[in-house]
Amino acid sequence: MKLLFMGDIVGRSGRDALVAELPVLRRELALDFVVINGENAAGGFGITGAICDDIFDAGADVITLGNHSWDQREALVHIEREPRLIRPANYPAGTPGRGATLVEAASGARVLVVNALGRVFMEALDCPFEAVEKQIAACPLGEGADAIIVDMHAEATSEKMAMGHFCDGRVSLVVGTHSHVPTADAQVLPGGTAYQTDAGMCGDYNSVIGMEKDEPLNRFTTRIPSGRFQPALGPATLCGVFVETDAGGLATRIEPVRIGGRLKQVLPEV
Amino acid sequence: MKLLFMGDIVGRSGRDALVAELPVLRRELALDFVVINGENAAGGFGITGAICDDIFDAGADVITLGNHSWDQREALVHIEREPRLIRPANYPAGTPGRGATLVEAASGARVLVVNALGRVFMEALDCPFEAVEKQIAACPLGEGADAIIVDMHAEATSEKMAMGHFCDGRVSLVVGTHSHVPTADAQVLPGGTAYQTDAGMCGDYNSVIGMEKDEPLNRFTTRIPSGRFQPALGPATLCGVFVETDAGGLATRIEPVRIGGRLKQVLPEV
Amino acid sequence: MKLLFMGDIVGRSGRDALVAELPVLRRELALDFVVINGENAAGGFGITGAICDDIFDAGADVITLGNHSWDQREALVHIEREPRLIRPANYPAGTPGRGATLVEAASGARVLVVNALGRVFMEALDCPFEAVEKQIAACPLGEGADAIIVDMHAEATSEKMAMGHFCDGRVSLVVGTHSHVPTADAQVLPGGTAYQTDAGMCGDYNSVIGMEKDEPLNRFTTRIPSGRFQPALGPATLCGVFVETDAGGLATRIEPVRIGGRLKQVLPEV
Amino acid sequence: MKLLFMGDIVGRSGRDALVAELPVLRRELALDFVVINGENAAGGFGITGAICDDIFDAGADVITLGNHSWDQREALVHIEREPRLIRPANYPAGTPGRGATLVEAASGARVLVVNALGRVFMEALDCPFEAVEKQIAACPLGEGADAIIVDMHAEATSEKMAMGHFCDGRVSLVVGTHSHVPTADAQVLPGGTAYQTDAGMCGDYNSVIGMEKDEPLNRFTTRIPSGRFQPALGPATLCGVFVETDAGGLATRIEPVRIGGRLKQVLPEV
Ligand SMILES: [Fe+2]
Ligand SMILES: [Fe+2]
Ligand SMILES: [Fe+2]
Ligand SMILES: [Fe+2]
Ligand SMILES: [Fe+2]
Ligand SMILES: [Fe+2]
Ligand SMILES: [Fe+2]
Ligand SMILES: [Fe+2]
Repeated sequence: MKLLFMGDIVGRSGRDALVAELPVLRRELALDFVVINGENAAGGFGITGAICDDIFDAGADVITLGNHSWDQREALVHIEREPRLIRPANYPAGTPGRGATLVEAASGARVLVVNALGRVFMEALDCPFEAVEKQIAACPLGEGADAIIVDMHAEATSEKMAMGHFCDGRVSLVVGTHSHVPTADAQVLPGGTAYQTDAGMCGDYNSVIGMEKDEPLNRFTTRIPSGRFQPALGPATLCGVFVETDAGGLATRIEPVRIGGRLKQVLPEV
Repeated sequence: MKLLFMGDIVGRSGRDALVAELPVLRRELALDFVVINGENAAGGFGITGAICDDIFDAGADVITLGNHSWDQREALVHIEREPRLIRPANYPAGTPGRGATLVEAASGARVLVVNALGRVFMEALDCPFEAVEKQIAACPLGEGADAIIVDMHAEATSEKMAMGHFCDGRVSLVVGTHSHVPTADAQVLPGGTAYQTDAGMCGDYNSVIGMEKDEPLNRFTTRIPSGRFQPALGPATLCGVFVETDAGGLATRIEPVRIGGRLKQVLPEV
Repeated sequence: MKLLFMGDIVGRSGRDALVAELPVLRRELALDFVVINGENAAGGFGITGAICDDIFDAGADVITLGNHSWDQREALVHIEREPRLIRPANYPAGTPGRGATLVEAASGARVLVVNALGRVFMEALDCPFEAVEKQIAACPLGEGADAIIVDMHAEATSEKMAMGHFCDGRVSLVVGTHSHVPTADAQVLPGGTAYQTDAGMCGDYNSVIGMEKDEPLNRFTTRIPSGRFQPALGPATLCGVFVETDAGGLATRIEPVRIGGRLKQVLPEV
Repeated sequence: MKLLFMGDIVGRSGRDALVAELPVLRRELALDFVVINGENAAGGFGITGAICDDIFDAGADVITLGNHSWDQREALVHIEREPRLIRPANYPAGTPGRGATLVEAASGARVLVVNALGRVFMEALDCPFEAVEKQIAACPLGEGADAIIVDMHAEATSEKMAMGHFCDGRVSLVVGTHSHVPTADAQVLPGGTAYQTDAGMCGDYNSVIGMEKDEPLNRFTTRIPSGRFQPALGPATLCGVFVETDAGGLATRIEPVRIGGRLKQVLPEV
C-alpha cells in the first residue's frame, strides 16, 4: 500500500494549499490512504465540521487531532457523528469521539489509525503507550488491519522516538506531530515500522510555528501579551511523509514530502 | 565564508564518527569555520577537557554547550582556560566561562559564536533574547565580526523560530540544538540569516535521542527508573548544517549535512 | 512598627470583606502600614484602577501583584501613574510600572515594599533573587528604609523558603502569595526576618483556590474545559500576617490573621 | 473515631521526633488510627524496610508515600510484603505494592487509606481522581469501611482542593502532602469530609523544605549544583491533623497538630 500522512494544517494558508494539492498528490503518487492532522485547521485553533468536510473532499481518509482538539467547541459534537475524525486515544473514558478508527480504503484494505497525545511537557492524560497498546492489540496488523498508522502528537522528541520503538514491528508507521517543524530522520526501524519524529506542519514557514511572528516575538521578549496569535498568511509548505508497505503491512520505504512555500521541495520518486 | 555547524555529540559513537569524518569534511567542503555542540559528548552527559581536545584536534574551531554543560564537574574549571569552549550566555553573572567567543579563522576572518539556552520547558535562566541581543550589539556583523553563529539550545520549536526571526538580518546563522533530531526546515530567512530549527545530534539514531532505548521505554511505560541512561553504541549519523555567507556576513545558502548511520545521507554539493 | 500583609484578594467576595474589615483592623491593631496582594481582585483575574482606589481607600498603603498582573489590560496604564501599585520586580527592563516602592507611613517611617515572581513551575522571568537583592541593596534596612516587606509570589514552597533565608536579617518580612492557601509556618527566622510561606487568599474557601468548584472539578476529571472560571461568592476569609518590628526594622513577632468565612478565626492579641 | 495523620517525615530529625512523640500522642489523644507519610524518611529520599518498622513500632497503622516512593530501591521489594505500606494508587497497573489498604484498628473498626499523586507540575501518571473514585467505590464509607483517609500527595493547591470537594461526603479525611509546609485551612467541608490542603512535614523548619538551606540557595542563585541535598538536622516540628468522626464515618472536627521545633505549637484539646 501507498500511504500519505500530512502534519498539522495551520489556518487558511495550510488549508488552501492542501485542498489545491491533495487531489494531485493522490493521483500522482497513486495513494491508497491519506491521513491528515487537522488540530490547527480553524484559524490556528481546532477544527470545525465544515473544515473537516473540505479536507475529506480533497482526498483525506482520516483526520487526527491533538492538544487543540476542542478549541472549537463544535468539534465535541461533530466528532460524535464523523467516524473518520479522531482525537487522542488517551483522553479519559467518556470523552466524545474515539481515539482510533478502522477505515476501509478504496482498494478494500482495512487501515487502523490511532491518535495519541504525549505527556512530557503537555497535558495530564492517561498513558499514551498503554492507550496505543490497547488499540493495536485489539486489531493487530495482518489480522484486523492491513496497515496501522499511529499519530503521536507530542512535544518531546524522546517520547516520540520511544513510541516508535514501542510499536516497532507491530504497526506500519509511527509519525509525530505538534512541533510544526518537519524532522529529517525518516527511517524504517529495525522491526519494520516506518518512523519520522515529526511530520511538520502544512503552513507558512515564515512564521513562529505557523503564526504571525510579531506577537510570539513580543511575548518572548516582554513577557506580556499584546494581542492574539494569528496564523501567518504566506504560502504554505505542505509537509508529511509517504510510506510504502508490504503484504504484511510493514514498511518498505518512508520518504519525506514537502510541497510549496519556503522549504526545500521534495517528493518521493514513483 | 563556508561554515559548518554540527549538533549535539552523544557519547562514544558520536565522538568516534566525528573525529573520523571532520578532517575529511573540512577539506572536501573547503570549510572556513566549524562549530560543534558538545554537551552530551562524555557518556551522554557533559564534556571533559580531554574530549574537548579531541574535538578541537579533529578540526572544530568552537564547542558550544547547553543544559548539560556542567554534568561533568571538571567542565566548570576547564571552561575558564579554554576560550573556544562556551556555555549558554544567559546563565547568571558570575557563572564560569563565557556565553560567546570571537575567534579568528585560519583565513583571518573573525567569527562570533553565541550560545543561548531556551526557557520554555527548560531551566529558569535569564532571557535568551536579551543575552543574544547584548552579544550581537557588542560585536555587530560587518563591524566586529565577519560572521555570527547563534546556537539556540532549546526544547520548543516556537522559541527557536522566534530566535531566528529575532536575529534575522543581524547574524549569519541561527541553528537550534537539544532535541537530538535534525529538522528539515533549512532556509535563509527574509533578512538574510540562515536558519534550521535543530541541527540534530551526532549519535546513533536507533535509540531514544541517542540513548539505549530499553531504559527510556521502561520509564515511559512503568514510571519507575530501573537503571541509568547509556548512550547507544550503534553507528552514528553526524548531523548539522552547512552555510555559505557573502561579503557582509549574511547567508546565501544553507544545506543540511547527514553522514553515516541510519539516516538518509546528504552532503552539500560543492 | 506594626505591619499587616494580606494575601491575594479574589473577586467580589474578597473585596467586599476587605473593604468592610480593613478600617477596623487598622484601628484595632494600631497598624502603621498595610500591604495587600491584589492580583485576583477583578473577577479573579487582575486588577483595575477603580478597584485599586477602593483598596487604598479602605486603608492599604501598597498593593502588590503577581502572575495575573496584566489580566486586565488597563493595569498596564494605571500602574504608570499609581506609585503605590507594584508588579514583580523581575519582569524585563521596560515593563510598565515598578517592582518596588518606598512609601512613607503616616508615622513618617519609610517602608520599602518589593514584589517578586517565582520561576519554579511559573513564567520565564529574570532571577527573583537577583531582583530582590538589587532592591534591598539600593535601600538597605536601617539606612534607606525603616521596614522592608518582600512579597514572594510563587508556586513552590522551596523557592519561597529559599527567599526567606536569602533575605534573612536584611528585611522585616518575607511572605509568600499565589497558592491561595494560608500556611501555618509563621516564624521569625534566625536572622530576624519574619516569614510565612503563604499569606493565603482573601476569598471564599468553599471553592477551588477561590473559584467556583464545578469548572475546576470538571477540568480535572474530563480534561476538557466547559466554561470559564468564576470567583466563588460565599463569605470570604481574610488571610494574612501581622508583624511587629524593632527599632532596627527586624521582626520581633509574626502572627497569622484569619477573619470571617469558613477558616478558623485568629487575630493577634494586642 | 479519633484519627491522626502526620505529613512527610524528613530524615533523621523527623524520624527521631516522631518515634519519641507518637506513643505519647497515641495515648494522650486516645487515637484509634494513625497514618504517616514516609516518602522522605530515609535521608530525605524514600524509605527502607527498617525505617518502616521503626515507624510502625512507634504507633503508626499505615505509611503512605509519594513521588519519592522508589528513591530507595529496596522499597520496590519491601512494599510487596508489607500491606501497611502503600504508594500512590495512580501508578500504572503492574506497579509493585498497592495504592490503598483496608486495615483493622485495635477497636475493630475498618479504615481504608488511599494514596494518590497529583499531576499538576508533577509526574505523568494516571488520573488521581479516577484512581481514588475506584478505591472508594469498591469500599464505601459506612459499608466496607468505618473511616476513609485520602492522602493527596500533590504540588498544586488547586488539585488538592479539587480532590477535597471530589471526595466530600464520601470519605472521612482528605489531606494533602508534598509541599512540606502545613496549611492553616483545616475545615470540615459542606458534605462532612475533613480537609486540610497540606499536613506539613515532620522535619526541621529552619531549612528549605526540610533540607539544609545552603545547597538549595546555591542552586536558586547560581543555577549550578555544587553538592547534594542533605536533610537539615535541627529539631523537627511534627505536623499533621487530628480528626474526629461520627458513627457514619464523616468528620465532626479537624484540628492541626504541631509539636516541637520552631513552629507555633498546637495540640487538639481533649
Ligand atoms: Fe499543531
Ligand atoms: Fe499540538
Ligand atoms: Fe543534547
Ligand atoms: Fe540539551
Ligand atoms: Fe493569586
Ligand atoms: Fe498568582
Ligand atoms: Fe515529601
Ligand atoms: Fe513529594
